[in-house]
Amino acid sequence: MKNNTHEYFMDIAVNLAKKGIGKTSPNPAVGAVVVKNNRIIGKGCHKKAGLPHGEIIALNNSGTRAKGADLYVTLEPCDHYGRTPPCTEAVIRSGIKRVFIGMKDPNPIVSGRGIRKLKKNNIEVKTGILEHECKEINEPYIKYITTKKPFVTLKLASTLDGKIAASSGESKWITSEKSREYVHKLRSNADAVMVGIGTVLKDNPFLTVRLKTKRPAAIGPRQPVRIVVDSKLKIPLDANVFDAKAAKLIIAATKNATPKKIKQVRERGAEVVLVDSKDGHVDLKKLMHELGKREITSILIEGGARLAASAIKDGIADKVLIFYAPLLLGGNGIQMISSLGIKRLKDAVHLKNIQVKRIGKDVLLEGIL
Amino acid sequence: MKNNTHEYFMDIAVNLAKKGIGKTSPNPAVGAVVVKNNRIIGKGCHKKAGLPHGEIIALNNSGTRAKGADLYVTLEPCDHYGRTPPCTEAVIRSGIKRVFIGMKDPNPIVSGRGIRKLKKNNIEVKTGILEHECKEINEPYIKYITTKKPFVTLKLASTLDGKIAASSGESKWITSEKSREYVHKLRSNADAVMVGIGTVLKDNPFLTVRLKTKRPAAIGPRQPVRIVVDSKLKIPLDANVFDAKAAKLIIAATKNATPKKIKQVRERGAEVVLVDSKDGHVDLKKLMHELGKREITSILIEGGARLAASAIKDGIADKVLIFYAPLLLGGNGIQMISSLGIKRLKDAVHLKNIQVKRIGKDVLLEGIL
Repeated sequence: MKNNTHEYFMDIAVNLAKKGIGKTSPNPAVGAVVVKNNRIIGKGCHKKAGLPHGEIIALNNSGTRAKGADLYVTLEPCDHYGRTPPCTEAVIRSGIKRVFIGMKDPNPIVSGRGIRKLKKNNIEVKTGILEHECKEINEPYIKYITTKKPFVTLKLASTLDGKIAASSGESKWITSEKSREYVHKLRSNADAVMVGIGTVLKDNPFLTVRLKTKRPAAIGPRQPVRIVVDSKLKIPLDANVFDAKAAKLIIAATKNATPKKIKQVRERGAEVVLVDSKDGHVDLKKLMHELGKREITSILIEGGARLAASAIKDGIADKVLIFYAPLLLGGNGIQMISSLGIKRLKDAVHLKNIQVKRIGKDVLLEGIL
Repeated sequence: MKNNTHEYFMDIAVNLAKKGIGKTSPNPAVGAVVVKNNRIIGKGCHKKAGLPHGEIIALNNSGTRAKGADLYVTLEPCDHYGRTPPCTEAVIRSGIKRVFIGMKDPNPIVSGRGIRKLKKNNIEVKTGILEHECKEINEPYIKYITTKKPFVTLKLASTLDGKIAASSGESKWITSEKSREYVHKLRSNADAVMVGIGTVLKDNPFLTVRLKTKRPAAIGPRQPVRIVVDSKLKIPLDANVFDAKAAKLIIAATKNATPKKIKQVRERGAEVVLVDSKDGHVDLKKLMHELGKREITSILIEGGARLAASAIKDGIADKVLIFYAPLLLGGNGIQMISSLGIKRLKDAVHLKNIQVKRIGKDVLLEGIL
């Protein structure tokens, strides 16, 4: 155990942090444990922006016993006043002797400040414990805080031969109920879900989160912002996305949209974001810039094939999730990604860090672009 | 251990049997162990048609100690004269007391005969130990012996979005070296490899097995028969498949092929099998009948998209293997399976018993049609 003690306790902190994934935005998910004589005396995780940070909860949990103890925290404690006071001060006040940190704060403005403050106050600090795992839980936060643009996940539900619908257009349902439930969890973890206008015209979705398992009222249920990419503002005013009052609706159009339709859409309660066009379509890079300004740190793109292709071509997609159902539809089915304009094999888009999971009868494949 | 003793020893027999996969055709792969006082005193596997069966080797291995011992064998011992004398007689002669059998001989003509003979000679017999595993190692044999038609595996090498080549036609190489090496193993385990004429015209393959690891000379290397489905007999007389002398070449054409070309192809050393046409193409069901007559018990179909579609539509494919490389090519890439004529989702082709493996950077997905 001796060699792995730090990893052991950090792993517990990582699992605590995971409880906050998708709920803390625009803050990162953070977990912390306070350890004394190899025993955990306090635990905490950040649950929602505005609520106390993970290390504060863990320290409060430990009370005066924190004096002389070790703190394991997945992310460098903050040293600035945000929605809450700096965590460093609480750590110093508590009498903690050593602080083990998973990863430095990726925020370039404050990175390293917390560590310096702790060291200056004679606290021993070690960073990089389970760094990979700690980074993984905050992929969206890391991208957002360093680029001010959302982390974009492209989700596709496909047959084994890469078809997302039969030639009739039918796509309900290619994947199993378990996969679809999993997608609702992904939705609820994202700040926004995004579809192309084609999907709205074809499927008329609500794009809301419908989870079977209810969360404690204090935490959720959380409805992501819904975004429709609709270059020419063709959306029908009676589309289902206008209906649900639970979540905000953003329609992204180009500046070529007519003032009349813009007015009508706004009157239906949606925000219309006008961005430059690129080859007649919404410039997704510019749209991401606009959405970043609105503190949207993560987006789940759910369809269709054209938006998927644009997200890859415009370089905004960070991660791809493909749910493969054990089906074949053959060549006249509708393919998952429209043309990327690739002619040669050497220009194929590479994915890395491939992960495979079984979800019910389906297989989920993840990769980083 | 007590409860699992039979499974424990049968598992060893199964692993012995696996050594014979792809080498024993048209015989099944069989493994056997002789056990006395919970200790293995003899092991054996069938290595090649004409060589002794697995149980005979295990018994020879045990010598006189076999008296009073238990025999574990993956398949019911034969009770007829084939290439070798009946195994039942050797078992009886050896003094074996109990025989544990994985699965009954699926050959309808002899199934149960071996078991009856053993019982009549006061040997205790128990069947169905690890039956599923024992059946799995002899999928081709079971299909062949019960239908006289080969077991057909469809192999595809694809991007994650279901493309087997870039729009330029390039397909070398979508999958990794490890996957390609794995395919050579699959080839060497099959009685035949099959491609469509399109693949010959485009890639001009040799279709021979090139394995890095050499097998003992007594067992291999084994070159599967090469089959080209070429309805109109368009194959160029200088195609690479004519070249390699290591393996037999069969060209399957319809009766519409010209006598002149038939003669030329035969002069190049190939067997021309003429079958009825179905919609102008080789009727694959009838072709399977012809190939079964030639003792071809298993076929690996390696391309292209049209032959894959025909194999599914004609109902000859038993198993699908898809190697997914971590790449995306987008909608203008060449899709893995041509149209199956499916319009509605309810008519999609279902695969069962999905298995997933990582092979180097690729993901291999297997399913039964």
